[in-house]
Parts: sequence; structure tokens; C-alpha cells
Amino acid sequence: MPLTRLRPLLKVQFQRVAFSSPRQISVTTAKMAKPQYLTGDKAGIEAFIDKFDTFLFDCDGVLWSGDHLFPNVPQTIDMLREKGKQLVFVTNNSTKSRSDYKKKFDHVGITASEEEVFGSSYSAAIYISRIMKLQAPKNKVFVLGESGMEQELQSENIPYCGGTDPAFRRDMTEDDFKGIANGSGLDPDVAIVLTGLDFHPSYYKYSLGFAYVRKGAKFLATNIDSTLPNQGSLYPGAGSISAPLVSAVGKDPLSLGKPSQAMMDAVEGKFKFDRKKACMIGDRLNTDIEFGIKGGLGGTLAVLTGVSKKEDFLAEGAPVVPSAYVDQLGDLLG
Amino acid sequence: MPLTRLRPLLKVQFQRVAFSSPRQISVTTAKMAKPQYLTGDKAGIEAFIDKFDTFLFDCDGVLWSGDHLFPNVPQTIDMLREKGKQLVFVTNNSTKSRSDYKKKFDHVGITASEEEVFGSSYSAAIYISRIMKLQAPKNKVFVLGESGMEQELQSENIPYCGGTDPAFRRDMTEDDFKGIANGSGLDPDVAIVLTGLDFHPSYYKYSLGFAYVRKGAKFLATNIDSTLPNQGSLYPGAGSISAPLVSAVGKDPLSLGKPSQAMMDAVEGKFKFDRKKACMIGDRLNTDIEFGIKGGLGGTLAVLTGVSKKEDFLAEGAPVVPSAYVDQLGDLLG
Repeated sequence: MPLTRLRPLLKVQFQRVAFSSPRQISVTTAKMAKPQYLTGDKAGIEAFIDKFDTFLFDCDGVLWSGDHLFPNVPQTIDMLREKGKQLVFVTNNSTKSRSDYKKKFDHVGITASEEEVFGSSYSAAIYISRIMKLQAPKNKVFVLGESGMEQELQSENIPYCGGTDPAFRRDMTEDDFKGIANGSGLDPDVAIVLTGLDFHPSYYKYSLGFAYVRKGAKFLATNIDSTLPNQGSLYPGAGSISAPLVSAVGKDPLSLGKPSQAMMDAVEGKFKFDRKKACMIGDRLNTDIEFGIKGGLGGTLAVLTGVSKKEDFLAEGAPVVPSAYVDQLGDLLG
Repeated sequence: MPLTRLRPLLKVQFQRVAFSSPRQISVTTAKMAKPQYLTGDKAGIEAFIDKFDTFLFDCDGVLWSGDHLFPNVPQTIDMLREKGKQLVFVTNNSTKSRSDYKKKFDHVGITASEEEVFGSSYSAAIYISRIMKLQAPKNKVFVLGESGMEQELQSENIPYCGGTDPAFRRDMTEDDFKGIANGSGLDPDVAIVLTGLDFHPSYYKYSLGFAYVRKGAKFLATNIDSTLPNQGSLYPGAGSISAPLVSAVGKDPLSLGKPSQAMMDAVEGKFKFDRKKACMIGDRLNTDIEFGIKGGLGGTLAVLTGVSKKEDFLAEGAPVVPSAYVDQLGDLLG
């Protein structure tokens, strides 16, 4: 039995040990209940929607897949707005900033404001600026990721290096090895290493990130999704692209994306809602649905247009089970 | 408690469960015994050397560190040859072929032949050609690594792609995403993904490796060392650079390097020696020394010129303990 097969099991055990608050009870309760299938059930849908004042949406796999918008999504969003619901779009995609997301919403024809978007890069920037509150100049972030991360750090006035700077997208030289070993090749102001999805990884960037963490930098991740759905297939996600650092360092980063409750706390802090009157809608059991259950939300709704299949939560002993599910988000229109 | 802290513990438990052969007993026995400190102990050294006919050497951290040869190493090697010992150089370094190693030995002034070298890339090539024995044309290897791996695959007439080909060291395009999703961007003959230390990782290579494994390719690694010592510091090793695939795929590769016993079996198959009269010399407890103990060798000798410190094996409850240790290899000259 390879070690990796043990990990999901362990993760569950670890969560049970680590969270002993009342919220944990709801995870156990949720595991017992059978999820309600709402597609085609007009009365069931109405009763379900009526239970909540706030809906938290995952985006990729729920609203769209890449450039493909799922049926009736803009109308469903409009229907919820007409009913006076508060909407928040909570995404783990670290490559896009809130402003990038607004452009995407406009492009596909969904009514949404930049203020309603809460991405994992923004979550990380908020955590760094408002929770960690490091004193300048020793507050620089070494970024392993794309421009969405840089934009959100900029929006919180956090200095950074690495990221999309072409100087870091190059081969490692003998001088780099020496400079990292003797410290002359390191920026003395770096206090945080933040990893996200980086489409331009390099041995040099991994070596720098490893060196900074070894020298005491705090190790953060926008999210730890192992895969990235695209074009109907799967590609390495932020969690996989940051895995060289996790392996070399020997410890996990603090993740500021779903299902981390650091993100839930930040979302609640910004949008001020009653968790018991809030529902998380998503396609991934181990990020979206777990995020809602661990956060003690009143409900969770799974859609089958993304990563998880209904067999994943209908199976006996499934570790994460939503309160309800629909084939696709547009089915909420009834 | 972060999950990664649990892993070393689990690894030990996993090994205890997985290996129930008599060899496992020697691991337990070795854990009980206190290692013999041989530096300065002339009689102890002589008795220790006399016990063995064969010495297996790790190279980096034992003979040299980078370009720095440790004191009296050539003389120690010569002394063992004069005593009629069989010498084998067993290295996890996947970036160098046996021929590259011969050049290195000549360069630093150590007497050794190419035939005495057994590297993890050669180990992988042997495993593929002589154990897996795949039928052409469906026997191509997708390589994540450097030219040492390519050379050893060539020496066994195994077709490959990826590796140092500049066509794979580039940014991922939208067409690449599509080509991987619909299969047109994949080589239908790839049956194996082999990862080693790749100084030129790319999102494109990781995506291809992930896609091939998902389509059923066998997932192999030359070795899974998490770090690479160089310049007196540490950098990401082969195990870290292949971690994106491990994370995305969700399973560990079969490693053909130390401490995998697939490598020990291949070394024994080629060099024909009595394991009870053989001693493994190395600087890493969790690769070299564990390799010797799990292989049921008559002895293991740790040197303190590399990764592991004596505190690591002298501590109460240390998981891997050598039979003996010296400050440096040259101390065997007495």
C-alpha cells in the first residue's frame, strides 16, 4: 500500500483531532444525512433557497468551465438577487485578481461587482496585511505565482519579488547556487514565501523559495488544490506546483484558500453574514463543500458540472457530504 | 499538528507493515544496537574492514562535496583495493551517467572504472529494459530529467522523449491544454513516465507527465531524495522536483534509487556478492544506511561529511542506526 493512499484517511483523522469546536460536530452530522436531490423538485428548491440569506459561490465548475458558461447561470444569479440574497463569489483561482474576475463576469454576461469577489490571492493579501502586519522593510513576499497574486499584494501595498519578473524565469547558474548558499543571492527583506499556481516554475525559483523558508520566512499558499480542471481534462493545480517546496521544506504551507477556515473567517469578516443562514455552492467536495461544512454554514449545495461526481458523496462512508445537490446550477430556476 | 509532521512516523509504520520478511528483523535489531565509533580506533577499523568482502559507496557527501574531495579518499580507496575488496559506487544522482561518473573519478584522482558505478538512472534503465521488458513501439519513456537519464536509457536501447529536448522547456500554450485534453498533443507510444532531478522543470512537462500517468503509463522515479546538497547548502532534490506529479496523480512512483530494494536487487544481480559480507557506506540515514539495513547487508558505515549528523542516529529511538561511523571516510586509513 503506497504511502499516498494513506493520506486522505490521515487527513480526516487529523481534522478530527485538530478541530474540537462545536463546528466539528456539524461535519459528523452532515456525514450521516443523505443529501437532498433538488433538480426538478420545484417545492424543494423554493424551500431550500428560502432557508438562506447568503449564498457563497465557487466559480470554475459551477458558473462556467473555462470559456464555457453553463446553461441559465446569469438568470439564476438574477433570480437570487431579486429574492434579496447576498452573493459572494469565493474562488481558489490564484492566477486572477478580483478585477480580472470582474472582467470575466462581464465577458460571460453575469451581473456581479468586483466587491462581491473573494479570491485566494486576495485572501492571502488580506491575511498578510491585516493579520500578520509585518513591519517594513522586513515584510517582503517572495511570490511563486502569476500576476493575479501580484495585483492583490499591490492592492494591500505589500512589497514582493519573484512572481512574473522574467529575472526569475531562467536557468539556475553555478553563481545562483553559491549566492543562495552564502546569502548574497537572497533578498534580506523577504519574510514570507507565498505559493499559488505558477505556470512558469523554475529550479531557481524553487531553490529561492526553499532557502527563504529555511531562513525563517513564513510559508503561505493561496490554495492547495492538487489539480486544475480545464478543457474537460485535469492539469497540475496550485497545490501540485508548490509541492517541490513542501517536499524540500518538509512542512505544509498555511493555505489561505478553501477549505482553509482562515479564508472563511476573512470572508465573514468582510461580508458580515449569519453563518447559519448561509449556503456554500460548489463542485468540489474536498474544497467547496468541506469549506462550508467546516465553517458551520447552514447548508451546502453540490453541483455536478465540475470535479466531484455524485457517486463521491452518495457512497457509503463518504467523508464529505453536501446538504443538497443539483445536476447544474441553472436547475435552481426550477 | 501539520500533516507533514506525521509523515515520517507513518513511513516507519508503513515499512513495518509492508516488509514482513526476515530482513525487516535486521532493521529492528539495528535500532537497538549502539553504533561503533571507529575514528582513531586502529584495531576497531581493522576488525571492521576484515568483516567484509564488498563495500558499496555512496559518492556525494562521502567521497566529495561538489568539487571538493574529502581528505585521504583516494588513498582509502586504494587501501581497500589492496586488501582485495570488491568496490561498487552506488549513487542516487540521476543527472550523471556512469560515463559522467568515470570522468569525475578521473578528475578528482580516484581510481575507479565505469563498470564499478551503479547510478539511479542506470538502475531505472535496467529495470525498464530487463524487468518490465515492454514490447516496441509501446515502450517509450517520457523523461523528466537531465542528460544522465537519457544516456542510460540509450545504453539500454530504450526510446524516450521529453528530457533535455528544448521543445519541452517552454511555456504552456492554450493549444497544449487542448492537445493534452483531446490526446492529439500526446505521444501514443509513451508507456512509462520516469522522473529524476530536472533543473529545467516546466508546467508543460508536468502536465504531460500527469496526462501520461492518468492514461495508464507506469510511474517511475530514479530516486526520491527530497534535497540536493551543494555548496554547503541544500536545494530541491529529485523527490521534490517530481512532487508536482506525485501530488497531481495522488500516488508515489516506484523509486529505483536508494533506499528502494529494487536497486539493491539490481546491484546484487550485477555484482554478485554475499550480502552478509557486504557493507554500505553513506552519509544519509534515510537513503544509504536504510538501503543497507533493509537489504540485509552485514554492516553499514555512516560518515559525517554529508547530510546526516551523529545526533540523528545517536538519539534515543532513532529510526535508522548504522553499525558504525567515522567522522570522514579517510579515517579508515587509521
